[in-house]
Amino acid sequence: MKALVFDKRLKLVLDYPAPDLKENEALIRVKYAGICATDLEIIKGYMGFKGVPGHEFSGVVEACEIPGLIGRRVTGEINLGCGRCAYCAGGMRNHCPQRSVLGILGKDGAFAEYLTLPIDNLHVLPDEISDEEGVFVEPLASAFEILSQIEIGRGTRVAVLGDGRLGILTAEVLSLSGCPLTAIGRHEEKLAILKARGIETAAGTEGLGSEFDIVVECTGRAEGLSTALKLVKPRGTVVLKTTVAERDGADLNRAVIDEVTIIGSRCGPFKPAIAALKERAVDVRMLVSRVFALEEGIEAFQYASQSGVLKALIKVE
Amino acid sequence: MKALVFDKRLKLVLDYPAPDLKENEALIRVKYAGICATDLEIIKGYMGFKGVPGHEFSGVVEACEIPGLIGRRVTGEINLGCGRCAYCAGGMRNHCPQRSVLGILGKDGAFAEYLTLPIDNLHVLPDEISDEEGVFVEPLASAFEILSQIEIGRGTRVAVLGDGRLGILTAEVLSLSGCPLTAIGRHEEKLAILKARGIETAAGTEGLGSEFDIVVECTGRAEGLSTALKLVKPRGTVVLKTTVAERDGADLNRAVIDEVTIIGSRCGPFKPAIAALKERAVDVRMLVSRVFALEEGIEAFQYASQSGVLKALIKVE
Repeated sequence: MKALVFDKRLKLVLDYPAPDLKENEALIRVKYAGICATDLEIIKGYMGFKGVPGHEFSGVVEACEIPGLIGRRVTGEINLGCGRCAYCAGGMRNHCPQRSVLGILGKDGAFAEYLTLPIDNLHVLPDEISDEEGVFVEPLASAFEILSQIEIGRGTRVAVLGDGRLGILTAEVLSLSGCPLTAIGRHEEKLAILKARGIETAAGTEGLGSEFDIVVECTGRAEGLSTALKLVKPRGTVVLKTTVAERDGADLNRAVIDEVTIIGSRCGPFKPAIAALKERAVDVRMLVSRVFALEEGIEAFQYASQSGVLKALIKVE
Repeated sequence: MKALVFDKRLKLVLDYPAPDLKENEALIRVKYAGICATDLEIIKGYMGFKGVPGHEFSGVVEACEIPGLIGRRVTGEINLGCGRCAYCAGGMRNHCPQRSVLGILGKDGAFAEYLTLPIDNLHVLPDEISDEEGVFVEPLASAFEILSQIEIGRGTRVAVLGDGRLGILTAEVLSLSGCPLTAIGRHEEKLAILKARGIETAAGTEGLGSEFDIVVECTGRAEGLSTALKLVKPRGTVVLKTTVAERDGADLNRAVIDEVTIIGSRCGPFKPAIAALKERAVDVRMLVSRVFALEEGIEAFQYASQSGVLKALIKVE
């Protein structure tokens, strides 16, 4: 099969072996896959990954043990647990110490004609969600994860820091809670997307003090946590989404003195993400900057790494 | 009055002006004051403090507007709020943005014959607590702060990292909750104090994995947070007590991926600390390494900065 393969460098391979279908797995023909910040890190060497990257996708089930699933449009959760440990037993396969992760850790991913995933990981896409939109379920679930970790009430003052893909999705999701929300970014054209959704925006942090109950750090930048710690109130909470190779020396003394809580946040629940897309409570269509063919994958990665690009999709078939 | 004064360097001043007694304040004749890690940082320039350091003390009220307090043995909370902001109104004067802090920020402290504090900050010491033990109320309150921030149940596996003064007090306090607790340190003689109290100890982290629900970081060292992040379980909590000028590049990506919560923790409630000392639920007497006269203050600071020393006290009168 055709696949984008990373092994020291990213290349298009025309005869990559199709994945073996294991017990309790489904074989999925990929329709669309999205390039995410993690993919851009992976092709710099992050996680030491070798193989087919890609973990945001929509596709069609071609084969599996449940006949009713065959031919259904799906997306899928990306963490594969061992199924035996305390985390898997407790419904936390995302944290299984033996896990593999689609396109990130020990498991070939979505920039290919086919992928496999455990049937348990699959979510059927309702008719209201297009193949292109289906790619956004995974990053949108990551934004919903925040609501599963902390309480955001109507009186909670929230800042979302970063106006990239995840920042925009996060601001859209958190605004559903009805909280007073400020999305802080650097790009007028990206902030304009949020403004159009009725969300208050700020270009930069000038004039902002330690005034937010919650700051969600989605910058993907070395200085993101430092900035978040400046914006959060004493006894407030910073939700940390950014993984980055180098972080500047964030002033964690400030976190001690002001008793700030920093919560790491990663993958999230797919069900509310699918419901939000189905109901158009969140609209992701304007986030697609450009669609590439799988054969244009190298170019797509170069494009996606440019400042100002929101989401580059790869159309596989 | 006699005082230890820091202004670029620490010196003994024989004729330092006694503090003015302001409205709602008490004048306190200091009996004992303790040298804490923060004091050792202050004389290196931390907080840019100038004046009399010292914030752990016991003393006797010499003058105030409440006649019943005069002559009583007291200790005191160290944060002085503005009394007007939302934090002060909400019972969080410890986080008042305009606060001064005894011996740390804009307010002369306890290494002197006299200090002043608002009457509201004072706590009368019961007869069961000696003048020497009274010095430990403030650091012990800092350990009790953890119990006010997070829930520790009988099934919660807790590690206290660091066997200095605060580490020992923290381990003693947290052991009161009945949780399975491991105190991790580097000094056999310090760990022996905890062993004698029936607390499980470990010399170093060798052989320990990511196995603790909660890790309390009391090392006072640059690498403390990194070590804590290695010991904590996915979705676990690190309580961060250490403020330090330089921290090594703690792997905060681990906090994101494993969705770890990091909670900064500082000053705490005096009432449970006083109750624990009164009932001898916590015994601090073996923590006193040596007692110095105020005139020997410089020597006391040198002594306190040595590895292996627990608590150096200064006897003022």
